[in-house]
Amino acid sequence: MTQTFPHASIRTSPYHSATVDEGATTFHAYNRMLLPLGYGDPEAEYRRLTEGVSMWDVSAQRQVQLRGPDAARLAQILCARDLGSCVEGQGKYVALCDHVGNLINDPIVLKVDDDCFWFSIADSDVKLWATCVAAERGLDVEITEPDVSPLAVQGPLAESVVASIFGEWVRDLRFFWFADAEIDDIPVKVARSGWSKQGGYELYLMDGSRGLDLWSIVKEAGAPWNIGPGYPNPSERIESGLLSWGGDVDATTNPFEVRLGRFVDLDVPDDVIGIEALRRIAADGPTRHQLGVVMAGDDPRPGHDRWYDVVAAGRKVGSLTNGTWSYKLDRNIGFGLVSVDCRIGDEVQIAKGDTLIDARLTPLPFGKDDR
Amino acid sequence: MTQTFPHASIRTSPYHSATVDEGATTFHAYNRMLLPLGYGDPEAEYRRLTEGVSMWDVSAQRQVQLRGPDAARLAQILCARDLGSCVEGQGKYVALCDHVGNLINDPIVLKVDDDCFWFSIADSDVKLWATCVAAERGLDVEITEPDVSPLAVQGPLAESVVASIFGEWVRDLRFFWFADAEIDDIPVKVARSGWSKQGGYELYLMDGSRGLDLWSIVKEAGAPWNIGPGYPNPSERIESGLLSWGGDVDATTNPFEVRLGRFVDLDVPDDVIGIEALRRIAADGPTRHQLGVVMAGDDPRPGHDRWYDVVAAGRKVGSLTNGTWSYKLDRNIGFGLVSVDCRIGDEVQIAKGDTLIDARLTPLPFGKDDR
Repeated sequence: MTQTFPHASIRTSPYHSATVDEGATTFHAYNRMLLPLGYGDPEAEYRRLTEGVSMWDVSAQRQVQLRGPDAARLAQILCARDLGSCVEGQGKYVALCDHVGNLINDPIVLKVDDDCFWFSIADSDVKLWATCVAAERGLDVEITEPDVSPLAVQGPLAESVVASIFGEWVRDLRFFWFADAEIDDIPVKVARSGWSKQGGYELYLMDGSRGLDLWSIVKEAGAPWNIGPGYPNPSERIESGLLSWGGDVDATTNPFEVRLGRFVDLDVPDDVIGIEALRRIAADGPTRHQLGVVMAGDDPRPGHDRWYDVVAAGRKVGSLTNGTWSYKLDRNIGFGLVSVDCRIGDEVQIAKGDTLIDARLTPLPFGKDDR
Repeated sequence: MTQTFPHASIRTSPYHSATVDEGATTFHAYNRMLLPLGYGDPEAEYRRLTEGVSMWDVSAQRQVQLRGPDAARLAQILCARDLGSCVEGQGKYVALCDHVGNLINDPIVLKVDDDCFWFSIADSDVKLWATCVAAERGLDVEITEPDVSPLAVQGPLAESVVASIFGEWVRDLRFFWFADAEIDDIPVKVARSGWSKQGGYELYLMDGSRGLDLWSIVKEAGAPWNIGPGYPNPSERIESGLLSWGGDVDATTNPFEVRLGRFVDLDVPDDVIGIEALRRIAADGPTRHQLGVVMAGDDPRPGHDRWYDVVAAGRKVGSLTNGTWSYKLDRNIGFGLVSVDCRIGDEVQIAKGDTLIDARLTPLPFGKDDR
């Protein structure tokens, strides 16, 4: 653990001082913004998310906005998923690939209107990518990063909190759909989404000057349900099998290797970036796949600072791309990006430096009985 | 100040544990790698750089390698500077622009051989950009991030240290030129370069597994000259007028606004990205320019966490894009990106929250008498 600090090139979010007041101890740089990743009590923060309700500053999940006559066309060119059926107010989780089918991001695409799309991105420069594609193809579209900063409300009690603020209608929102709303003159989009499997919403704040106001409103409204601060939680997301682009994906990972094949539509037009390569990979079958890894022993190990080798019969068969203590399994768990020759149930080892840790490959998401 | 930590998506450098052993206290995420930015005694670290010799872990200055039959063509397409005269072993500082002439990076381009170029980059995803351009234009070139991690040796005594390791020939290297060398079987390129105006070298380590060995060799060789750890130093670089892409540049900054016009060749071929826009801007003249800002008072103020408004006669005329205590001027100084109506000598104010600080516009780089 070492210090970091806000800087003109690593921005603070509109909620930053509120998160510091709440006791945020740890930050991560994500899309050139400080993302809080800890408030000092990991187990309480995990329980709050999985049993109650938790509020997260996820402003670092920036939006890349495509606006103009060719916005819809560019959105489709960038995405190996058919957006033709996507209607205003609907979001879709998509695989963004390069020309050889490797993942360069896995955003939610929100159709704001016929001429405006938001890409709610993981940690890579989708704006730079989209700007290049639009210019090289001569498209009439403006690409910007608008003043939009999501605040996530996540957990089994999230619906009650968000309904108490915005009204009962939020209970009818379908997953990844969103609608405009206002509270105390603060403009937001309310989306049923979020990077956990505990249910919840993301409030897309559309006026950064009102971040602290929105934080207070949610905190106050959530008090009856004991809301408290949280963050994209490594234990919960790994138990739930959620992918972290950047963490679980390297420069040569395609969607089929990391369980995103179901979000790829092979019949999109030929001008979609990477689609020819993806058709080939789909036909041949990928060479790696992603499985769960449960490690032996009930001693929580320190954090995961890199990919570690997965070894079977003395030979490297893949990588452990993340690792965490699971409160659900009382074991250290992680994702293995391993050869398709590896199967669920296989006994393997994880090489952390000179230490070999016994482990077993499991399905994803993890079940309580996978330990 | 808050904590950060290594993570699979924010890598450590090959010198990381050595920098921690040396007492690094502060890190910045740069090109998805932890970059040390402080060892606890800013003034001593400044004096070491400006009066002695300092060694820096600048692995985060990643290389983007273009290799293949079209490498030279792609390098030129990306750069608004003529690379035709660049020979093997030579580097050039270039403006990398998007299609409308805005800066997206300011790397050193190193011509490794006729079919191989390295872009030694500032903090933006040049690999993603170059990959997109190459694929969209159908060029035959492979784009990778090779295992290359620069270690900078900077300061007036740097030449003696580096000559003592690699031989007297390093004294004859011209600025931005480089040559292959080896020490204890560690392959490096020795370049006369570095992000200070104190003189020095960058040792491009080409085997990440030997980082700690190279660190020890330099530390030991430098002992007679009292070498010690350092980092890209905000006081020195601002006094010296060196640009920080990301810090001093926003999404709509062109090279002419930030004193890079002399690195733009308007007669490069028409397929160079942004060149038409740059010709237009050069003809019309930019609307902003970069000047020095010297603030009143000799009380060192805390760090610079964002751009602040520069105000003249009650009206915003630009932004203070960085700020630091200058040991040379005994004043707080910074760069102003201001309207071309603002002139050297003008009295302005800097708005930090509700505080207005009196300031004066000066030439860049700063002279001792500019206070």
